[in-house]
Amino acid sequence: MEIKKICILGAGTLGSRVALQAAISGFEVKVYDITQKALDFSLNTMQKILHLLVKSGQLNKEDLASILARIEFTLDPKVAVADADFINESVTEEPEIKKKVWKQFGELAPEKTWFTTNTSYLLPSMFAEESGRPAKFCAFHFHDVFYSRVVDIMPHPGTDPSMIPMLEDLGRKLNQVPVLVKKENPGYIFNTMLMALIGAAGKLLTKEVGSIEDIDRSWMVNFHMPMGPFGILDSIGLDTAWHVTHNLPDAASKAFAAHLKTYLDQGKLGEKTGEGFYSYPNPAYKNPDFIK
Amino acid sequence: MEIKKICILGAGTLGSRVALQAAISGFEVKVYDITQKALDFSLNTMQKILHLLVKSGQLNKEDLASILARIEFTLDPKVAVADADFINESVTEEPEIKKKVWKQFGELAPEKTWFTTNTSYLLPSMFAEESGRPAKFCAFHFHDVFYSRVVDIMPHPGTDPSMIPMLEDLGRKLNQVPVLVKKENPGYIFNTMLMALIGAAGKLLTKEVGSIEDIDRSWMVNFHMPMGPFGILDSIGLDTAWHVTHNLPDAASKAFAAHLKTYLDQGKLGEKTGEGFYSYPNPAYKNPDFIK
Ligand SMILES: NC(=O)c1ccc[n+]([C@@H]2O[C@H](COP(=O)([O-])OP(=O)(O)OC[C@H]3O[C@@H](n4cnc5c(N)ncnc54)[C@H](O)[C@@H]3O)[C@@H](O)[C@H]2O)c1
Ligand SMILES: NC(=O)c1ccc[n+]([C@@H]2O[C@H](COP(=O)([O-])OP(=O)(O)OC[C@H]3O[C@@H](n4cnc5c(N)ncnc54)[C@H](O)[C@@H]3O)[C@@H](O)[C@H]2O)c1
Repeated sequence: MEIKKICILGAGTLGSRVALQAAISGFEVKVYDITQKALDFSLNTMQKILHLLVKSGQLNKEDLASILARIEFTLDPKVAVADADFINESVTEEPEIKKKVWKQFGELAPEKTWFTTNTSYLLPSMFAEESGRPAKFCAFHFHDVFYSRVVDIMPHPGTDPSMIPMLEDLGRKLNQVPVLVKKENPGYIFNTMLMALIGAAGKLLTKEVGSIEDIDRSWMVNFHMPMGPFGILDSIGLDTAWHVTHNLPDAASKAFAAHLKTYLDQGKLGEKTGEGFYSYPNPAYKNPDFIK
Repeated sequence: MEIKKICILGAGTLGSRVALQAAISGFEVKVYDITQKALDFSLNTMQKILHLLVKSGQLNKEDLASILARIEFTLDPKVAVADADFINESVTEEPEIKKKVWKQFGELAPEKTWFTTNTSYLLPSMFAEESGRPAKFCAFHFHDVFYSRVVDIMPHPGTDPSMIPMLEDLGRKLNQVPVLVKKENPGYIFNTMLMALIGAAGKLLTKEVGSIEDIDRSWMVNFHMPMGPFGILDSIGLDTAWHVTHNLPDAASKAFAAHLKTYLDQGKLGEKTGEGFYSYPNPAYKNPDFIK
């Protein structure tokens, strides 16, 4: 079955980006959230991204109107899912919220609709039964859609195998590079590796082997990368990193989580609060002298 | 004391690169090894690198003769170290060989000479006593000198603290970015993080979460990097990775070491043997279609 109509649940940071890319790729998109404020935020986010895509020559200004015309925002769940071929759910990363949403939309969605979740660290098997159609349920996980163009396809044990080539094809149509995560794994592939890197950096810091700056410098200069693990942490958000880290069983993770907590307690969550390991908008690592 | 004369022990891959950079930076350099073959290899390596540096516009052709004139190759340990201000040792990564070399040169070197080792995974405290002058002994560890321009400064507990600013200054003169490793740590800073990344990638592979290609793709596309962990492993050498991995205590490292061993047993050591996780000279990950 060809996918034409896409329904996005949750109009936050990621839902807005996925919805926008779907409209750019020519799909008809409905965007659902529970507050008008969220929908306003979403349109605003999309307009900012469109502006950047035009500025960088990736889109023509003339196409913007037709792209936005393919997107409908709604607070009505029935309108959101009526006739949808495909759902990608990007609601708040809380098991209870996602369960509730999947129960609700499992009942409302037409029989044809495929179900996917964009969860970052939870597993599709946590929601597949709730949705009422586990065979048509799979994780379809984006990164940031425009700069990091990976989409992870992660089935749970009950996912119908025919969903995988369908999602690979859809991922490519959405200008992403599809990656198959053959079994359920919290953090998929990239986040698992990134958290290992960040965990090692955290251990080097808490064991006082190196300073924040020297740890980042090592990574940046050796790999010619624009930021190191602590710069990356600032952009992910120290709260998110703490959530992932503080439940890990090993002593090094616990020590690093405790260290992150000292920042959280001061309201330093990274780039979004203007302060984390570095100060924004002009963090030291962006200064050319940093790697001299 | 200003450093003018540098003695390089071991004219292999790294010794040759450090010696060449020292000559480019205007130092007088003596390069010592135990066989003429090694010295011939060294000169040959340097000429290849100089050719590339001229090609990429980083050096002028007219300067090559004077650079090479600053380098003297010798099989005579006395000639190598006579009047040296500074030694950087890059002999084979074997504790017994390095101990022997440090005992020998500790006796031969003039009193003024500072001692540094370029070891990748061993610790300076393993050789400091052997050298007879632990206070003047420190690790000074390069990466590949020309592309990855980090130099790690890692004192052992007995290193004279005045060595650190001296090495930072020397590192900058050698066109490197100095990084201070405040306490002894096998793998310094970068290799510790790189091995954590590679360990996570190995675990994803042996647990059959993702394919070699999808694991690399995730890293490459998300970070816009030219290779992923398995491509990096091929360039490091699977034998080196096995040496580091198989002694680690955790089950995941042991499983990955066992997996690496299946490649080693077939003579597949990575890029240098033409075969590793990928086939060379045209590995799949360099094909633009790989990330589509
Ligand atoms: N931010 C990222 O970098 C990122 C990347 C990949 C995946 N994700 C995943 O995407 C999901 C959303 O993350 P986000 O960063 O966009 O969060 P966000 O907080 O920006 O957005 C979540 C949205 O869900 C809405 N919501 C809450 N309850 C709802 C309900 N019952 N029905 C409909 N909408 C509801 C909220 O109003 C909000 O607009 C999470 O599962 C997250 O793990 C996030
Ligand atoms: N190859 C790398 O990427 C890299 C990077 C950083 C540091 N290092 C470190 O540099 C050192 C050398 O590594 P390499 O890759 O250049 O190895 P290599 O095998 O290319 O070179 C080692 C050289 O040491 C010589 N040697 C052996 N015994 C000697 C002795 N008694 N006296 C003098 N020379 C002797 C050998 O003949 C050989 O030429 C190791 O400690 C390694 O960990 C290597």
